[in-house]
Amino acid sequence: MTDLGLGKVANDFADLIRRRKLPEVVYVTRPTMPNLEGYVQMLAGIWERKLLTNQGPLHNELEEKLRSFLGVEHLSLFCNGTIALLVALEALRINSGEVITTPFTFPATTHSLYWNRVRPVFCDIDPVTLNLDPSKIERLIGPDTRAILGVHVYGRPCDVEAIDRIASIHGLNVIYDAAHAFGVRYKNNSLLSYGDISILSFHGTKLFTTAEGGALVCSTNDRRQRVNSLKNFGIADEETVIGPGINGKMSEFQAAFGLMQMELIGDEISNRRNLAALYKELLAGIPGIQIPADVPETVSTYAYFPVLIDATRFGMTRDQLFVLLRECNIFARKYFYPLISSASCYSALPSATTSHLPVAERISRQVLCLPIYGSLDPQTVGVISKIIAGAQEVATRGTAARATS
Amino acid sequence: MTDLGLGKVANDFADLIRRRKLPEVVYVTRPTMPNLEGYVQMLAGIWERKLLTNQGPLHNELEEKLRSFLGVEHLSLFCNGTIALLVALEALRINSGEVITTPFTFPATTHSLYWNRVRPVFCDIDPVTLNLDPSKIERLIGPDTRAILGVHVYGRPCDVEAIDRIASIHGLNVIYDAAHAFGVRYKNNSLLSYGDISILSFHGTKLFTTAEGGALVCSTNDRRQRVNSLKNFGIADEETVIGPGINGKMSEFQAAFGLMQMELIGDEISNRRNLAALYKELLAGIPGIQIPADVPETVSTYAYFPVLIDATRFGMTRDQLFVLLRECNIFARKYFYPLISSASCYSALPSATTSHLPVAERISRQVLCLPIYGSLDPQTVGVISKIIAGAQEVATRGTAARATS
Repeated sequence: MTDLGLGKVANDFADLIRRRKLPEVVYVTRPTMPNLEGYVQMLAGIWERKLLTNQGPLHNELEEKLRSFLGVEHLSLFCNGTIALLVALEALRINSGEVITTPFTFPATTHSLYWNRVRPVFCDIDPVTLNLDPSKIERLIGPDTRAILGVHVYGRPCDVEAIDRIASIHGLNVIYDAAHAFGVRYKNNSLLSYGDISILSFHGTKLFTTAEGGALVCSTNDRRQRVNSLKNFGIADEETVIGPGINGKMSEFQAAFGLMQMELIGDEISNRRNLAALYKELLAGIPGIQIPADVPETVSTYAYFPVLIDATRFGMTRDQLFVLLRECNIFARKYFYPLISSASCYSALPSATTSHLPVAERISRQVLCLPIYGSLDPQTVGVISKIIAGAQEVATRGTAARATS
Repeated sequence: MTDLGLGKVANDFADLIRRRKLPEVVYVTRPTMPNLEGYVQMLAGIWERKLLTNQGPLHNELEEKLRSFLGVEHLSLFCNGTIALLVALEALRINSGEVITTPFTFPATTHSLYWNRVRPVFCDIDPVTLNLDPSKIERLIGPDTRAILGVHVYGRPCDVEAIDRIASIHGLNVIYDAAHAFGVRYKNNSLLSYGDISILSFHGTKLFTTAEGGALVCSTNDRRQRVNSLKNFGIADEETVIGPGINGKMSEFQAAFGLMQMELIGDEISNRRNLAALYKELLAGIPGIQIPADVPETVSTYAYFPVLIDATRFGMTRDQLFVLLRECNIFARKYFYPLISSASCYSALPSATTSHLPVAERISRQVLCLPIYGSLDPQTVGVISKIIAGAQEVATRGTAARATS
């Protein structure tokens, strides 16, 4: 067994692992696969048309269905969410200066700024939303500031009204990395309707997936036209290139898979809601385990199920629990640790100083994302919850024992 | 009928069109589709593994098979060729200054420099290779020059030895956009083995396709490791980000299609060779039609079949022939017209001046790519050739008539 750094009580964990270890690895997420026969029928159409990409009929049908399902007016499909983010920035001509962003995110958010020659300015997060803390944004705005790039981490909405207000006062654009926020509703609207542009990811680890893929949502048709040209090399027509575009196109194969996923998405989301409710019930009251409360007026789709571990009360650190779960064949993930601001390519920035980001630092050391996906057996949620409860008991018993020895 | 601008002889063209018009549109290219059942068998494996991307087993198998087929040592698959080119530049840290490149190419080549914050310096092309003219490169090298970005246009090799020599003298990197050069051999080696990095495109219009897709070929394992990290967000392991990467990953669906295509590639190339030979035979001797001679010591795979139209001798311009062919349901393409240097985003650069690029200007006004692909009926090549021969006869008859009237 991997050393959990718990010394004498290791035997007690060995007992817990022996009793609870799952026969097969449970990953933090798995895609729900559509009916293969249905997918093959769609492929037959591709085989007949021999049009493999370049805004084919399946691509256009998926755009239409997503617009309707998500309740947004203008949506463009992409090869992946990262390229959508590069294009979002370029669409707004954010290709110099600074952008205020969160350090508590997947690397793609920050890297998109690098590719658009923009310097990230890291802003600390709010301990409740886990997203950009609006009260700390304004002090970071200077003459070079071009935009605010927020992330709806785990699909939890940023404080979009406060961010909008600040952006409006200071004349800044707002872009949201909504990679986790597929289908999330906020105040009875799509969360994607906030800000100038939002991007989605349809990566294989997302609740709606096209294997690789993504989308860009914006509010005007003019902007969508510009985005569509940028994702297709800036080509306006056979003989006109209007700007330095890129290849951001989604193929017909990806679109076909997306169309099949659309048929499953209702069940996928309701299954995740049930699993999240079960986790909340079973983990409630375990000392040192905090489940971030849902953001008010939000209908979540539970792309992730993060918990925060307070090592003092729980009796073991997040990293120790992570290892223990692995020993039990449960592959939880430390999303998002370490902070992207600590990566060597950003750590020399003044805004990357850890003392400037105390909440993000703390959360990144406490957070653990537990397995959640539509086809996850509720019994597995039960086992995971029992392991966590058991770990706390063993760990604090050890502490108590040491205290009295 | 669209006005060809030929005045009185329009009726003669009407007759030609009536006799030769094809019942269905023939595009410049069509993908050869693999056996659908075979593809579905590969999909069954994906359905079982539920691993949709992130260097899955099919991805790795395709990398291996391509390495062997192409005869190269280090190859990384990509979501598309454009992102491969962005990563190629970043892998060599070419992200400032100037790069010497050709104006006679698809926009992606030049745009890749934009995304890497590099200024293109356009160099005229050689009238024989249709690629970078090595004798004009050195005068463009200045203190800001970082690299030479050549394109093996239509799969025709650049003068790789001369370019290597110049690069070596001046300490420059060499990158080749080999989007058209799948399988091309030069002096008994893979053409991809020249330069520091070459990139391939597997777009739906290419002779080997994964719908969208591409690859990067480089000469050392260290570089391949860096490339692989850059295409995956710079992630080295679960907790380490080593640099500002991007998402350039190819999915398992793309890889599966590529594996199926591998089984067809031999026939695809030999069919293209036969069609190219037929075109050469049937178009030989038509006044004003020039078929660029194969580059010596090159085994071509005929990704494209370009011809050059000398309007004076042919009796009509390239644009007029283009329209006439469309009227006959033959969708030839003006690859590459206009020059990318003339796009508004580049036209103000000193090196974009048309007087600086006389050969490229002339070729771009003369070139027309005729349909070529493995499943193209040789009879269609016959019809296309007859239309071109007939057009020349009608057009010069008109000229003769006008000259004597």
